[in-house]
Order: sequence, then C-alpha cells, then structure tokens
Amino acid sequence: MILAIDIGGTKMAAAHVDEDGAVLSTRRAATPQDADAETLWKTLADLVEPLAPGVTGVGVGCGGPMTWPSGEVSPLNIPGWRDFPLRARLAGRFPGLPVRIHNDAICVAVAEHWRGHGRGVADMLGMVVSTGVGGGLVLGGRLINGGTGNAGHIGHIVVEPDGGPPCGCGGHGCLEAVARGPALTEWALARGWTPGTAAGDGLYREDRAVTGRALAADALAGDPVALAAMRRAGRALGIAIASATHLCDLDLVTIGGGLSQAGEPLFGPLEEALREHARMAFARRLRVLPAALGQEAGLVGAAALVLVGDRY
Amino acid sequence: MILAIDIGGTKMAAAHVDEDGAVLSTRRAATPQDADAETLWKTLADLVEPLAPGVTGVGVGCGGPMTWPSGEVSPLNIPGWRDFPLRARLAGRFPGLPVRIHNDAICVAVAEHWRGHGRGVADMLGMVVSTGVGGGLVLGGRLINGGTGNAGHIGHIVVEPDGGPPCGCGGHGCLEAVARGPALTEWALARGWTPGTAAGDGLYREDRAVTGRALAADALAGDPVALAAMRRAGRALGIAIASATHLCDLDLVTIGGGLSQAGEPLFGPLEEALREHARMAFARRLRVLPAALGQEAGLVGAAALVLVGDRY
Repeated sequence: MILAIDIGGTKMAAAHVDEDGAVLSTRRAATPQDADAETLWKTLADLVEPLAPGVTGVGVGCGGPMTWPSGEVSPLNIPGWRDFPLRARLAGRFPGLPVRIHNDAICVAVAEHWRGHGRGVADMLGMVVSTGVGGGLVLGGRLINGGTGNAGHIGHIVVEPDGGPPCGCGGHGCLEAVARGPALTEWALARGWTPGTAAGDGLYREDRAVTGRALAADALAGDPVALAAMRRAGRALGIAIASATHLCDLDLVTIGGGLSQAGEPLFGPLEEALREHARMAFARRLRVLPAALGQEAGLVGAAALVLVGDRY
Repeated sequence: MILAIDIGGTKMAAAHVDEDGAVLSTRRAATPQDADAETLWKTLADLVEPLAPGVTGVGVGCGGPMTWPSGEVSPLNIPGWRDFPLRARLAGRFPGLPVRIHNDAICVAVAEHWRGHGRGVADMLGMVVSTGVGGGLVLGGRLINGGTGNAGHIGHIVVEPDGGPPCGCGGHGCLEAVARGPALTEWALARGWTPGTAAGDGLYREDRAVTGRALAADALAGDPVALAAMRRAGRALGIAIASATHLCDLDLVTIGGGLSQAGEPLFGPLEEALREHARMAFARRLRVLPAALGQEAGLVGAAALVLVGDRY
C-alpha cells in the first residue's frame, strides 16, 4: 500500500493507493494561507500520520517549480515553501521507504497513462487546464523527465508570439497566459460577462463565482461572451497541441482540470485549430480527449511514481 | 564496417563508416531527376556496389515521409519514389545484415548527439535548417521516435498562428514556412535583394545564386534586406526553440544545414527571441550552437542507427 500525497495551493490530500491504482481512505486539509514553512509541514505531517502504518512507499505530487528528483519545492502558490526539502523531510518520517516526488501536472499525466485513457498508449501528453496550464509527456511508454524534471511544460508553448499577453513565467504569448482559467475570466469580465447569467437560476452558489468552471457553464448555456472566451482558449490549445504533436509524434492528448468538462464550446474550436495546423498524416491521427480520471488523478499518479518506477 | 547511405533530392551519398564514426571511401551520385522508381534504385545500387564487400550492416537516411521502421519511402523531393520499399530492397541486396532507415534530419541529429556537440548530453534537439526545417529529439540519452517515427518535426511548430505563410505540410504559420531557405530568398527578392551585391566581387559563382547560403553571406556583408530576412528566420527559430525546450526540458539545440553558418545575423535574433520567451530557470540553461558536424553528418547518423541501435 502506497501513501500518496497531492499538494496544492488551496488544499492538501493524502490517501492509500493500492497496486491497482485504487484510492482508499482519502484525507484532505486546507493549505494554510500565509503560513511559514514549518506550519505548512505540520499540517501535512498531521494529515498523513493516520495513514502511515503499513505503507511501503511514498509518492508525492506538488506544484512547481522544484528541484528534481531531490524534491526541494518552491510552489508558486505556496509562498511559505521556498526550497523546502519536502522529499527529504518525508524520507526522514518514513526511513527506509522509497519516497518519490514530481510536479503535480506530471502526476496527473502519469495517472492518465497508467489508469486512464492512456492505458496501452505509447506516446501521449496529459494536460491540466485549470488555474495554470501544465502537463506531462509519456513517449515510448515512459515518462519523459527532461534534464531537470521539467519536461511537459506545454503551458509555455508560444501561441501568440507578437503582442500576446504577459505570462507568469516572465515571457509572453504562452498558452498558459491565454488559456488559464483566471486569464479567461478576466478576458470575459472585461467584455461584459456576468457569471451565472446565461446558465440561469437553480445554480449552486459556486457557479456564480468568477471561475473558469462558471465561465464554461455559461458557454454551454449559450452566453456569447463566455462562448468567445472558450473559443479563444480552444484555439490556443489547438495550436499548442499541433506544435506538440509535430515535435513528439503523439497518439493521444488528454485534458484534465477545471476546463476539461467545458464540452463543445472548448473542444470544438480546439479541434478546428488543431486540424487547421496538423495536416500531415502522422499528426492527423492524434486524438484529444477529456481526461478519464477526475480529482483523484494526482494521487493515483503520485502512487505510480513508486509502484511503476521503471516507467514513470 | 557499416555501409551508410544518405539520400536527398539532389544527390545520393554512400560511405563506409567505422565503429568510431569515421567516414571512409565516400561515393556520391546525382539523384536522377524525373526518374522512375527503378531508375532511382539502379543509381543507388550502382553507387553502393563497390562498397558492399565486408560490411556488417546498412544504415540509411532518406528524406521523408516514410513508413517507419519498415522503410517504404515517399520523399517529397523524389517524386519517382512513392511507397518505395527501400529498406526491403536493401535487405534483399544484403541478406542477413541489419538494415535500418530513418528520416535524414533524424540521422543528422543522431550524428550530432553521437559524435558532435551532443556527446554526453542527455536531452537535445538536433536541427537542420536548409531547403526544409527538420530535426531529431534525443531525450534521456535515447532517440525519440514517436508513434510512427515522426518525432522531431520542429519545422512544423507553429510560430505565426494567424496569417502566417502557407506551409508545404498543408498548414500555415509553421517554422518551416517562414525559415526555410527558399521562403527566405523569396521574401528577400520581393523586397529588392540582389544576390551577391553586398558581398561584393571575388565571390564564387554559387554565391550569386538565389540560395539561402548567398542570402546569409549578403547579411554578413551588411545588406539590409538580407539582414532583415535573417532576423525574420532567427526570431522564428528562437520562438520555436523556446516552445520545444518548455515541452522537452532540453540541454542543447544544434543547428545544421545551409543556414548554420549564417553567424550573428541569424543567431543574434534567434537568441534574442529565445531569451524573450524562455524565462524560467530550466529553460534559460539551454544552449543553441551551430552543428559541429558538416556535410557528412547524415552518413555518420545513418551508421549510428546500426552501430548504437540501443540508443538510436
């Protein structure tokens, strides 16, 4: 039984994952905001403690950047951890056990390859389109790490080279700068979008919040500004995916995260832009699918780092 | 001793390559123009025949597209070969010997990794910028083939998504559509460039031809239109390379082919665009260098397919 851990800016999750990838006994905690490094660590340590007995390895997904494979983490949205030796601290708590760590988007991609639509697929890109846009590459059936563990950063493929919006990475015109949820909601708000208007009454309160999920719901309900925002994101995704498959000759791209349920308003323009740019036979075979795994994907992938270490 | 073969639209080359990658006894022949499949085959068979005795394997680089690894070739610039079973025909001529074939740009990248600037580098992209723009990816020290042997097509990373020039692949705005030699010379001619003017007298006759090489020479000599063309190519290359290293976390990109000797007028704008878009620490470490190997790179890489088959 593996102890799987998934650490994000708003919550931390831990679970037992068995060798088939089944997630058991999940525990969650809010990530303390504005907390110092030791407060964050104590929250995590308390979260995992009840799950500790009997585990044979520890797999961790965490927001980047991080040193890899050594696992000093500096998650963009957890300011209290800068060069925090997360892997080493966990190894200290679980002496003698394998402890592996990777970028959270990599874990989602690994999960999708191991237990999602990617089963049996040799060459795929697993994407997460959410607050950020990230991903992981599996080529020849094995996870591609790159020289520093940073392969898979499809969010920083350039889709608007001239005059594109500034990106959190310091560049501009990156896919992430265009298609991340907050960029899309900002774009839509500036053009008169009011969350929840089109989707009508009977909504959960969160569907009236300014979120990518609410924007997607309004697009599905026919709101023209929300539709235009989804089209903008879809085209940017299609262009980036065309570039990625030309470079890596992929069979499959999966899209997880908050926007993965956006349906035709996102996936229609995505396919249109992809087919416009990916014309050679080898590129035309590419399939793009919403991810099969949901919220637990990060935990499943974290466990796979330990369970299937020869491939991931 | 390996029999290495390099097949292009204007010439065919064959040589002995020893296990250290030294090229011996090179023979060349013009590729018959407007020839049928069997005429092309006879030219190749006659070329290799004197080199046949004693070889222990056959490695081939050929223009794409092709089926891979089976090696039915349909080189864009050799119309007489469509689904021509080149690997099978060579296997028939050399029964019992290993015969391996790959895209010619892949062979150049493999050569650069095996015997050029890429020695000891884990993650690199070897590029060829010439009549076309191609490349090959080595990740984790191994050649990446992709699902159909087509990984490495960096020429079709999208660098001008909206309104970019049409590309031979059927798409538009690809790096190749902007930066291939013929596109650059056409762009420069339309703006008043006259080959050889700036570079002055004392030129070889070929430097007065409408070629990317002549354009590069005129840029080095200060011709403003030629400089603008090199800047256009350099920026497109820099944007595509930024996207590639974000996706693959590369240590090194090498640039071979006709434009690799273009110097500062090409590499200056390339570095500028790359540094503008590749801002994260892992991407900043990337080095971009003119290829170490010259015209023989394709032969060296073709031989490596057989000699170092576990990596390439």
